[in-house]
Amino acid sequence: MNRFAHGGDTYGKSVRLDFSVNTAPLGPDEKILSAVREGENFFGVYPDIEYRDLREKIARRESVDIENVVCSNGASEMIFAVTRAVMPKTALLISPSFSEYERALLSVGAEIRYYDLREEDGFALRGDFLDALRGADMAFVCNPNNPTGNVFDRDILEKAAKQCEKSGAVLAADECFIDFTDACSLKGKAPVIKAFTKTYALAGLRLGYLIADGAFAEKVKKQLPAWNVSIAAALAGEAAAYDTAYIEKNVSIIKKERDFLSKRLSEAGFKTFKSDANFLLIKGAAGMDKKLLDRGILIRSCSNFRGLGGNFYRVAVKTRAENEELIRKLGDICG
Amino acid sequence: MNRFAHGGDTYGKSVRLDFSVNTAPLGPDEKILSAVREGENFFGVYPDIEYRDLREKIARRESVDIENVVCSNGASEMIFAVTRAVMPKTALLISPSFSEYERALLSVGAEIRYYDLREEDGFALRGDFLDALRGADMAFVCNPNNPTGNVFDRDILEKAAKQCEKSGAVLAADECFIDFTDACSLKGKAPVIKAFTKTYALAGLRLGYLIADGAFAEKVKKQLPAWNVSIAAALAGEAAAYDTAYIEKNVSIIKKERDFLSKRLSEAGFKTFKSDANFLLIKGAAGMDKKLLDRGILIRSCSNFRGLGGNFYRVAVKTRAENEELIRKLGDICG
Repeated sequence: MNRFAHGGDTYGKSVRLDFSVNTAPLGPDEKILSAVREGENFFGVYPDIEYRDLREKIARRESVDIENVVCSNGASEMIFAVTRAVMPKTALLISPSFSEYERALLSVGAEIRYYDLREEDGFALRGDFLDALRGADMAFVCNPNNPTGNVFDRDILEKAAKQCEKSGAVLAADECFIDFTDACSLKGKAPVIKAFTKTYALAGLRLGYLIADGAFAEKVKKQLPAWNVSIAAALAGEAAAYDTAYIEKNVSIIKKERDFLSKRLSEAGFKTFKSDANFLLIKGAAGMDKKLLDRGILIRSCSNFRGLGGNFYRVAVKTRAENEELIRKLGDICG
Repeated sequence: MNRFAHGGDTYGKSVRLDFSVNTAPLGPDEKILSAVREGENFFGVYPDIEYRDLREKIARRESVDIENVVCSNGASEMIFAVTRAVMPKTALLISPSFSEYERALLSVGAEIRYYDLREEDGFALRGDFLDALRGADMAFVCNPNNPTGNVFDRDILEKAAKQCEKSGAVLAADECFIDFTDACSLKGKAPVIKAFTKTYALAGLRLGYLIADGAFAEKVKKQLPAWNVSIAAALAGEAAAYDTAYIEKNVSIIKKERDFLSKRLSEAGFKTFKSDANFLLIKGAAGMDKKLLDRGILIRSCSNFRGLGGNFYRVAVKTRAENEELIRKLGDICG
C-alpha cells in the first residue's frame, strides 16, 4: 500500500458502500447543492480574489474577525501553506495521524521526529508530549485525531500551545473533525485548520480554512496561489456557514450510530477504540478489507499508518441501514 | 493599486461588461456546465487522488503520455508548485508579464532579476534574452504574453529552452493563451503550464495542468496537496478536453473581433499593440478606466505592471455587440 494512500479512494474499485471516508453521514445538503447549482452562471468568472463574503461568513461562524480567516482549496492545501509559512527545519509529528502533514513537511525538506501514541493508552496524548516538542519548529496536532478518533487532553494541548508560543514554534491544530465532538478548539491559542469537507460532506468541492492571528494569516496568504478557492466551493461554503441544524442532525446520528457500531463490532470480536469522531479505529484480522471489498464495501486499511499495522482499520460511522450492512457482511466473512 | 491586483475583479464594483478578464469570448459551454450539473452527486466524495481519467484525457488532447500530465487548481497553483519544485535562488522574469510568477518566486525567497521588454519593439523578446538568462536557476515565459498579447519569437524561445536544459535551469512556459493562437508550443522542450480557465472560460472552476517530462512531473506532484482539483473542475475538464469545436468557434470570433476592436481603438486615437491573443494592450489617457467603470465597463488598468504605466490598459476581445458598446462608451468619454 502506498505510504500516502488515503481513505475515500473508490476509483478503479467496485464499491457500493464507502466506509473508508469520514465525512458527515448524511452526505451533502440539498440546500448547499442547490446554491452551487444556482450559481453555475458564475463558473465562467474569477472568484473574488479576497473571498470577502465567504471569509466574513466563516468569521461570523467562528466568532473571529475576517482578518483571522484565510480560505483554502480543502484543508490539504492549508496544511501545505501553513508548513511553507513556517518553513520548519525540524518538526514533530504525532503518530499515527493524518499523513498529509508528513507529505507537506517533506515538501519543504524538514527533518521529522515522531511522537508515538500507544495502543495501550488508547492512543491518548501523554504529558511527555511537552518534552518531545522541545527543539521542534513546528508540530501538527489533529484533534480529534485521525485515524484514532479520540480527542486529546485539553490541558496538554493548551500547555503545548503556550509552550510553542513562547519558543517561537508553531503548533498547527487540525480541527477538521471537531464540529462532530464536544471538544474545545485551540482557536485563539494556535493556528487552527478546519474544513467544510468533513462537516458538510463536501469532499469533492474542496473548501478549507485557517483561523489564526492576523500576522500569521498574512504570512500564510503569501504562500497561496491567487483564486485558490473555486466559485463552486465558495458558494457551497457561503450556503453552509451558518447551517448548524445540519451539523446537529449529523452529530446526533454519529453519537447514536457510533455506540451501535462500536458495540456490534466488539460483539463480533473486534477490538474497538474510544472515538469522539465520525469514525472508529478497530483491530481485526489482516486482509479483512479485501474480503469486504469483494462484497462491495470499502473500509480504510491502516497498514500505511506508522504505529499501526495491517490488522487496524478505520471505519466510518454511517446511517443505521449502512452500518447494519457492514456488520452483516463482516459476519459473513468471519462467521 | 495593489501590486498583485488582477483583471476580472468585479467584486464590490458595479460592472455590466467585464473587459478586464481574458477568457474565451463565448463564455462557458453549455455541454461543460451540464457535465458539472449532472455530476453534483459526486460533490460529497473525494476526487480520484491520481486524477486518472482527467489526466488521460488531457494527455490525449496534448499528444503526450499520462505520466507527463499533472493537474492543478488553476494555472496559478501550478505556477507556485513548479517554482517550489525548482526552489530557485535566482530567477529571471520578463517584464511586463503576469504577476503571479513574481508572487510565487517571492514565496520561496528567490532573488528576482528582470528582463524588460520595450514599447518601441512592440514588447518583443530580443536575442539578448539568452544572455539575460545566464546565472538564473529559473525563468517564466508567458507565450503569448500577458498583458501584451504578442507571441514571442520561436527561435529565441527554443534556444532559451535548450540553453536552460544544458545549464540545469528551468524555463517554465506559461501557454495559457496559446490555444487562441497559431504559435508553436514549447511542449517537449520545457515544462509547459496550461489551463482550462482561459480556453474554455472556466475561471470560476479552477483547472490547470502541467506538461513535463516524467521526472519533473513527479517533483512537482510532491509540491501539490492531495485532491487539489475539485470534482466539479475534473468533470468540466473531462467534458472539455476534446472540445476542439468550441475552441475553433472562439478563435474565429477572436481573430475577427481583435481586428475590429484594434481598428476602432486606433481610429479613436489609442495606441494599440499587435496581439495574437484574446486581449489587446492599448495606450490611452490615465484615469480612463475609472470613467468607463462609471459607465458599467471594467477594463484592466496596467498601472501595476512593471514597465507599463497608468495610461496602459488591457482590453478583452469579446463579441461584436460588446465590443461596439465599449467603443461607444469610449467615444462618450473622449468625445
